[in-house]
Amino acid sequence: MKIVDIRERSVPLHSAMRNASIDFSKMTASVCAIITDVVRDGKPVIGYGVGSNGRYAQGGILRERLIPRVLEAVPVDLLDGAGANFDPAKVMGAMMRNEKPGGHGDRAVAAAVIDMAMWDIVAKVEEKPLWQVIANRFNGGAYDDRVLVYPGGGYYYPGKGLEPLQAEMRTYQEQGYRVLKMKVGGADLDTDLRRIEAVLEVVGDGANLAVDANGRFSLDEAIAFGKAVESYKLFWFEEPGDPLDYALQAELTQHYSGSMATGENLFSAQDAKNLVVYGGMRPELDWIQIDPALAYGFTEYLKVDAMMTEQGWSRRQQIPHGGHQLGFNMAAGMQLGGSETYPLVFQPWGGFADDVDIVDGYARPHDTPGIGIELKSKVYQQLKELAEG
Amino acid sequence: MKIVDIRERSVPLHSAMRNASIDFSKMTASVCAIITDVVRDGKPVIGYGVGSNGRYAQGGILRERLIPRVLEAVPVDLLDGAGANFDPAKVMGAMMRNEKPGGHGDRAVAAAVIDMAMWDIVAKVEEKPLWQVIANRFNGGAYDDRVLVYPGGGYYYPGKGLEPLQAEMRTYQEQGYRVLKMKVGGADLDTDLRRIEAVLEVVGDGANLAVDANGRFSLDEAIAFGKAVESYKLFWFEEPGDPLDYALQAELTQHYSGSMATGENLFSAQDAKNLVVYGGMRPELDWIQIDPALAYGFTEYLKVDAMMTEQGWSRRQQIPHGGHQLGFNMAAGMQLGGSETYPLVFQPWGGFADDVDIVDGYARPHDTPGIGIELKSKVYQQLKELAEG
Repeated sequence: MKIVDIRERSVPLHSAMRNASIDFSKMTASVCAIITDVVRDGKPVIGYGVGSNGRYAQGGILRERLIPRVLEAVPVDLLDGAGANFDPAKVMGAMMRNEKPGGHGDRAVAAAVIDMAMWDIVAKVEEKPLWQVIANRFNGGAYDDRVLVYPGGGYYYPGKGLEPLQAEMRTYQEQGYRVLKMKVGGADLDTDLRRIEAVLEVVGDGANLAVDANGRFSLDEAIAFGKAVESYKLFWFEEPGDPLDYALQAELTQHYSGSMATGENLFSAQDAKNLVVYGGMRPELDWIQIDPALAYGFTEYLKVDAMMTEQGWSRRQQIPHGGHQLGFNMAAGMQLGGSETYPLVFQPWGGFADDVDIVDGYARPHDTPGIGIELKSKVYQQLKELAEG
Repeated sequence: MKIVDIRERSVPLHSAMRNASIDFSKMTASVCAIITDVVRDGKPVIGYGVGSNGRYAQGGILRERLIPRVLEAVPVDLLDGAGANFDPAKVMGAMMRNEKPGGHGDRAVAAAVIDMAMWDIVAKVEEKPLWQVIANRFNGGAYDDRVLVYPGGGYYYPGKGLEPLQAEMRTYQEQGYRVLKMKVGGADLDTDLRRIEAVLEVVGDGANLAVDANGRFSLDEAIAFGKAVESYKLFWFEEPGDPLDYALQAELTQHYSGSMATGENLFSAQDAKNLVVYGGMRPELDWIQIDPALAYGFTEYLKVDAMMTEQGWSRRQQIPHGGHQLGFNMAAGMQLGGSETYPLVFQPWGGFADDVDIVDGYARPHDTPGIGIELKSKVYQQLKELAEG
C-alpha cells in the first residue's frame, strides 16, 4: 500500500468582486491528485485536494518542499499501525520534516491541499463517505444528517448598487438558504448601513444575516460599526479587526453584545488557541471559523478541536470557513455548527455536490465514498484530467 | 526614476548540521537583484536582497505574486513625496496588494528579500551606507561605531563529540568573538549539560554563552532545562518552546530568573506585539529577536520598533536573528543591542564583509554605499551575475 504519485496544479479562482481587504480578480488555488496502488471497485484509489480561497496557489512550496518529502518517505511509514490504511498524520509529519515551528501562512495552505487528498483516500479505502469515517473515528459514530450551510456572498462588485445586492440575496433564498452573509467595511459606515438595510428587507430578520468585515476595522471603527448594527441582532459580526489582534477582539466584546465570529486567517492550532485564550471570545455566543483547507488540513483541525474542547467550547460553535466539501464533511461527522459554502462565486470550485438540495438552510451529506469531489462534475472533470496526466 | 527589472533565484544554503527542530542539509534561500534606471558613479543603481536562513527559498510566491505586482505599479507611486528616492513602504504596499491579513509565514520571507534590496537601493541613491541612512531617518543621526555581534553556532553535527564542539568555539574566539551561542534541546538533558560544560571550559564564564533550544521544549522540559542551567548565569536561554506559545513563555519567566530571548519565528509586528503583550517578556532582562529578513523586511521592522517603544522596551534589548548585513546595519543605525552572524555556516551567504574585523565581540560598520553586499566577494559575484542576466 503506497502513494504512487502526487500531481498538483494551480487553477484560477477569480471572480469580479472584492471584500473590505482584497479583490479576487487574480485569485488562484492549488489542486492536487494523489494516486495510490490500492484498488477499490477495480480501479486505483485516487484522492483529490482542492485549496480554499483567499490565499493563492502554492505550487512553489508544494513542488520544492512538501511533495518531494512525501514521495521520499518509506511507504510503510505513512500507514496506520495495522497497515490497513494511510495515516494522514504520518503524511503530515513527512511533509513537515525540516520545517521550523511558527510562521503558519502559505505553508499551511499548501499542506492542507495534500492533507485533504489524503483524507479523501482514507475514506475511499474504507469505502465510506468521509463524514462517516470522521463520525466513526472522532465522534463515537454520531453524525448530523443535515448540516447548516450559509453562502459566503454579498461582496462588493464594481458598480454594484443595492438592487443587484438584493437580487443576489434572493437567489440564495431561492436556492434554499436561510442564513445569508454579506461583506461590510469596504465602504463608509452610512453606505454599509444602507446595504445592510437593503438586505434585511430581503431576509426579514437580523437572525438570518451575518456581516463580515474581513479584518478591515481599527478598534474604534469596529466599536462604531458594532454600535450602529447592534439593534439588528445579526447572526454574527465577523472578523472585525486584524485576525492576530487578540486585544482588539477582546476589547470589542466589551462594546458589542451580539455574536461575533473569526478565525479564518489563523492557520494552526496554536494560533487558534491564542485567539481562544486571549481574544475574549464567548463560548456561549461566538463562533470560531478555522478553515482546515487553509490550515494544515483536517489533521491539524483535530488539534484545534481537542484544544477547543479543553477550553470549554462546544463543537456547535465551530463553523469552518471556506465553503469546501471538507468543511461540510467535518460539520456532518463531528456535529459542528455548520459550514460555509460558495454556490455562486469561485466557480466551478465553490459549493457542494451538483445535486445538493438545500432545505431551509440545511444540506444533507452525500453517500458515495470519500469527500465527494466526484459529485461536482466540472471540478471532477479537471481533477480527473490531472490524475490521468 | 523607476524599477527596470527584478530578478530572483534560489540558492542552496545547506550545511551538515542540525538544531533541535530541523537539519539544514536541504536548506535554500531566495536572493534577488533589483535593477533601477538611477545612475550613480556612472552605473545603474542595483539593489541586492539575500534571504535569511531557516525558511527556504520563496521563488513561487516571488514570481507568481509579489514581483509582478511591483512591476505593474505606476513607477511614480513607488517614490517618496519629493520623488527623490524610492519609498520601500510603497513598494511593500504594492507587493501586498490583494493579500489577506494574518498568516504571516512564507509570504513574509519572500517580501523581505525584495524589501532588503529596496533599502540597499535607497542607500545607494543617497550614496551612503545603509546604517547611516537609518541613523539619519530613524535615530536622530546617532549611531554605534561598533556593534555587538555573536556567532550562531554550536549546532549538532552528525557524530560530533565534545572536542570538535570546543574547537568550533575556539575558532570563533580566534576570530575575535566573545559572546558565543550553542544549540540545545536536540539531545537529552544530561548530554546537553555535558556539551554546555565543555563549552564553558572554552568561554570561561556563562555571561559569554547563549543557548538556543529552537522551540523544541514543552513547558515541563523548558522548566527542567532552566533549573539545570540557571546557576551558569548564561547570556540568554533562547526560544525554549513553540514560538507562538506565549503562555508557555510567560509561565517560564516564573521559573527561570536568567535572561531569555525569542522572536525569530514571528513574522509580523502584530505577532511581535502579541509576544510582548502576552509572553511575559521582561524589558530589563530579555531580548526580542525578530528577523527583518524573514518578516517583511526593515519596512515592517520599523513597525516592530515603534511597537516596542510604545510597550516600554529599549532598542538595546532588540537583537535581530539571521546573521545578515541588514541586521548589522540596523543594529548600528538604530543602536540596537547587536546582531547575530554566521561566520562559519551557511557559506558563502553567512557572515558580514570579507574584511570585517571582530574585536572583543564587536564589529565596525562599513563605509561604502548601501547594505554592503559588494564587500562579500563570493556573494557579490553571484548576485552580479544574476543582475547581469
